[in-house]
Amino acid sequence: MLSFKKPDVEQFFRTYAIQDFAVNHDESQLIFSTNLSGKYNLWAMDLPNVFPYPLTFMDQSCHGITYDKQGHFVVVGFDKDGDENAQLYAMPTKGGELKPLRVQEGQRHMNPFLSKDGNRLYYTSTKDDPTYLKAYCYNLETEEEKVVIDGSGASTYLYNTSPSEKSYLYIKHFANTYTLGYVKRGEEEILLTPATEAQHTVSGAVYVSEEELYLITNYNEDLSYLAKFNLNTKEFTKVLSKDGEDFTELKYDKNSNLLYLAASKGVEDYLYQFDMQNGELSKIDIPASIVEKLEVTESGNLYLLARSATRPHNIYKKAANQTNWEALTNYGVPGVAEEELVDPEVLTYPSYDGLEIEALFFKAKEESSNGHVILWPHGGPQAAERKQFRSLFQFLVNRGYSIFAPNFRGSAGYGLKFMKMVEGDWGYGPRLDNIEGLEYLIKKGYADRDKILLMGGSYGGYMALLLHGRHAEYFKSVVDIFGPSDLFSFIESVPEHWKPVMNQWVGDPVKDREKLIEYSPITYLEGMVKPMLVIQGAMDPRVVKAESDQIVAALQKNGASVEYIVLDDEGHGFSKKENEMKVYRAVLEFFDRFI
Amino acid sequence: MLSFKKPDVEQFFRTYAIQDFAVNHDESQLIFSTNLSGKYNLWAMDLPNVFPYPLTFMDQSCHGITYDKQGHFVVVGFDKDGDENAQLYAMPTKGGELKPLRVQEGQRHMNPFLSKDGNRLYYTSTKDDPTYLKAYCYNLETEEEKVVIDGSGASTYLYNTSPSEKSYLYIKHFANTYTLGYVKRGEEEILLTPATEAQHTVSGAVYVSEEELYLITNYNEDLSYLAKFNLNTKEFTKVLSKDGEDFTELKYDKNSNLLYLAASKGVEDYLYQFDMQNGELSKIDIPASIVEKLEVTESGNLYLLARSATRPHNIYKKAANQTNWEALTNYGVPGVAEEELVDPEVLTYPSYDGLEIEALFFKAKEESSNGHVILWPHGGPQAAERKQFRSLFQFLVNRGYSIFAPNFRGSAGYGLKFMKMVEGDWGYGPRLDNIEGLEYLIKKGYADRDKILLMGGSYGGYMALLLHGRHAEYFKSVVDIFGPSDLFSFIESVPEHWKPVMNQWVGDPVKDREKLIEYSPITYLEGMVKPMLVIQGAMDPRVVKAESDQIVAALQKNGASVEYIVLDDEGHGFSKKENEMKVYRAVLEFFDRFI
Repeated sequence: MLSFKKPDVEQFFRTYAIQDFAVNHDESQLIFSTNLSGKYNLWAMDLPNVFPYPLTFMDQSCHGITYDKQGHFVVVGFDKDGDENAQLYAMPTKGGELKPLRVQEGQRHMNPFLSKDGNRLYYTSTKDDPTYLKAYCYNLETEEEKVVIDGSGASTYLYNTSPSEKSYLYIKHFANTYTLGYVKRGEEEILLTPATEAQHTVSGAVYVSEEELYLITNYNEDLSYLAKFNLNTKEFTKVLSKDGEDFTELKYDKNSNLLYLAASKGVEDYLYQFDMQNGELSKIDIPASIVEKLEVTESGNLYLLARSATRPHNIYKKAANQTNWEALTNYGVPGVAEEELVDPEVLTYPSYDGLEIEALFFKAKEESSNGHVILWPHGGPQAAERKQFRSLFQFLVNRGYSIFAPNFRGSAGYGLKFMKMVEGDWGYGPRLDNIEGLEYLIKKGYADRDKILLMGGSYGGYMALLLHGRHAEYFKSVVDIFGPSDLFSFIESVPEHWKPVMNQWVGDPVKDREKLIEYSPITYLEGMVKPMLVIQGAMDPRVVKAESDQIVAALQKNGASVEYIVLDDEGHGFSKKENEMKVYRAVLEFFDRFI
Repeated sequence: MLSFKKPDVEQFFRTYAIQDFAVNHDESQLIFSTNLSGKYNLWAMDLPNVFPYPLTFMDQSCHGITYDKQGHFVVVGFDKDGDENAQLYAMPTKGGELKPLRVQEGQRHMNPFLSKDGNRLYYTSTKDDPTYLKAYCYNLETEEEKVVIDGSGASTYLYNTSPSEKSYLYIKHFANTYTLGYVKRGEEEILLTPATEAQHTVSGAVYVSEEELYLITNYNEDLSYLAKFNLNTKEFTKVLSKDGEDFTELKYDKNSNLLYLAASKGVEDYLYQFDMQNGELSKIDIPASIVEKLEVTESGNLYLLARSATRPHNIYKKAANQTNWEALTNYGVPGVAEEELVDPEVLTYPSYDGLEIEALFFKAKEESSNGHVILWPHGGPQAAERKQFRSLFQFLVNRGYSIFAPNFRGSAGYGLKFMKMVEGDWGYGPRLDNIEGLEYLIKKGYADRDKILLMGGSYGGYMALLLHGRHAEYFKSVVDIFGPSDLFSFIESVPEHWKPVMNQWVGDPVKDREKLIEYSPITYLEGMVKPMLVIQGAMDPRVVKAESDQIVAALQKNGASVEYIVLDDEGHGFSKKENEMKVYRAVLEFFDRFI
């Protein structure tokens, strides 16, 4: 019988992803943003047929898909080559002209949604207040626009209107661990959680009537729970919580009087249905580990964008009153069975101060292992490495590398207190959690002390630089993907509307000067003695190219071994298959050279 | 309410096509060749889910997909940039390595099929006899190969083996109107139609047992009918014919004892089911006008690749004993509803000698018409313009041009006698049929005498050149797409295995010298006084680039207005979306300049 070679590296690169989706009113069409043709475009399927057809050919990432409920058009947002300056267009539901609705170069147009009659477009923008933002209502018929929310004190995002559009729900983002929900009704601005000095978050809220909202908050607790708020009585009531789990998303099914809740527990997500009539909470089994997006339709059907460690983005549908999920899309690694991919082991270890840290360990299979472990500090930092497919991981594991991804202090999904631990402490606790993780791996036989590599992106790139500067003895070589190298210049260069959060999140350049020097990788240039590869997108609006330029220049001046790849048409992430391949190939070749 | 612009030209270019498909044994997977990512690759769907996933990324056209019945692999053929030199590879059914099976540069490997156990690969190749060809049996286990059919007298193609592989069915191709079917059993070579001097064709045949075959032939008649042949008794029996229709394809459903027959009537196809038990023929309604490929599975389900004038290639499925077809794919013109496309009117008109000619007339809609008609002599010439989607037509019609496509004498689908009329008469009857068609259009008010344009490809390009040279007064401008300009050099430059048919088809360079001069466009250079655009693929193996080079050079020398586009990575047709767009845009701009 014929035998075939093991999968080629390229096959892993060819795995497609889904950025977002939306389903129309009568569920006859589903629009999604995917890179099926190599670059991101909008595609659609005429349900129940799931064969996709293209709607756009502009090769850009999508920032929002909103159907006009009358079925005439969709409002879609696109940025340009990853610059995150989303512009808003109207498009016929079957594709065709992209009619500019709200387009202003250099500005962001966020969270677009339409009134029920499709005549009014609501969105939040940087255009008049780049720091605190404003929210607008644009009338598609008259082409008139008015400000409905005037941001102040923190970047302020409009989330929804009440059913009759008489009041507005918005969230002020003071920090990732400090967000407050408000409703504006007439001139009244109503805070949805009791007034307190204690920081907490409101991470989702839905109107169930003109007067009542359900929300997800961790007010007064460590983990987020379901609460409700009455706009008339101003009463805040905790409804329910789930032990050890953080509620993260909330959807309302009006016809069945149900709420759907996504909950996060460390590296995995769960889905629940809450019956508002009888107060019953029931778990809904999902066909994946991580919920990316959930939509509930008027008929009560659920549409879920989700992924697992061994299964990339796919969209699933569950009909109301049924328990099985039907996969609408069918993405996998081309030519590689799911069983050939590696499902990570979940490890926990105590850090230097006894704090328990959870981590994922992707172990290369016996027959292909090269004995090396790559430490991957995740980005965020108030995010987490979870059971979610990454072609980067699966292809490196396939090539023989094991990967260790610790959810160091500051990671999301472990409660408010844990998440706050990185604030103003970018370079101490999280750094030592990574080092303690390596020591744990070595002690337990997961890694050899002389066979460790290091790679990270964004905050993970920052951490890779810092670990390299301060603990180079652990690593044979280091890859930094758009990581900040100098916290002073980083604080200065982030988008304007991030700036209000920087003091709490990273530190105050004046008051915390000493600490920011101590935490900046560029302080430790002399220690960066291992071969390094730096990768940067030229359009990156979050970690600007100068962050990578300056460390590369400084290292080159020192005579260090550093390679530098700049992608002209990418931002903070890789939106184009060819760029992704180029970078991942370079990473593999780089590591292969130094093991 | 929002209003949107009319479809952009680019949307028509973005319509995808399907080259071929195959379904596996248990109908759990369907593989198809499509340009979903802009270039042709193999994709698959895991039935009943129809969401496609990619199997190859080589961006080449497919020449054959054959499943190993055991389900371990497929044998697939690919050429390179349209050179038609198909090479054969094995590939895991889920994608991955393309393992070369029969690869020899510059040679063609045609009609591949596998033995039931998947161990032996049969195919026909140019490699040892480029003129008459040979057929081979390659053993995948031992890697040994033997010749099973030795071509002689005409290019000879192996089509199938008997169920036990004891005999071989092959067809000798003397001319498009003269093909004979044979079975080789031991050393015996058995002709499947009675011996006669009268030319006829055998266009399909299936074994229904070791001894009996059903075949489609027009032996002794003008239109092809169903016949059977017994290898033991040597008895040839006509089984049935259908008035005015030409049977074209034949599939055997062993389990139900049914034959499926595709029939062609001028511009449309029909599908029939023939019950071999009771001799009943019943029509099966199909969801399209033109049958491109039909597969019948062991379970009796039908899979159909088909298209209509207003609907591009799609694959449909009909479950056994059901009447409705389910569309598996969902290709259309992006953002353009089927109703916005133009369904052609079928015209018939008498030619100069009274012969009735059928033609398609695509009438631009009132609101967009520019009053101009493009004459489109089809390629082949022993083919026909039929009710099949062409983005070229639909986008030109959308831009205001009407299109007139006559099935001049020599076209297929109107009987053997009609089809033979072009043989040895390339430049007379067919040319005047085109001219008479124009006169008919003018007389009937379909066209204005001073608003006619001309475009054709392949034989149609030849005809465009000839009509330009001899009847320039009719046309405002002319587009030639890879048309032969000089029949002498054309005869010399075709692929080796085409050469045996050239004498009958085009003419003998010695005996028919005068006629070939008369019929060669290059003879009429002086008459080519209208602006011309010539388009040619550099890799074209059928009409080589020199054919276009020479006429362009000659015209330029004469000071004529001629533009020339050469596509370096294309053959006889456009396999890459970007090239297609470039050419079609150029055609539109060219015509727009001269109306």
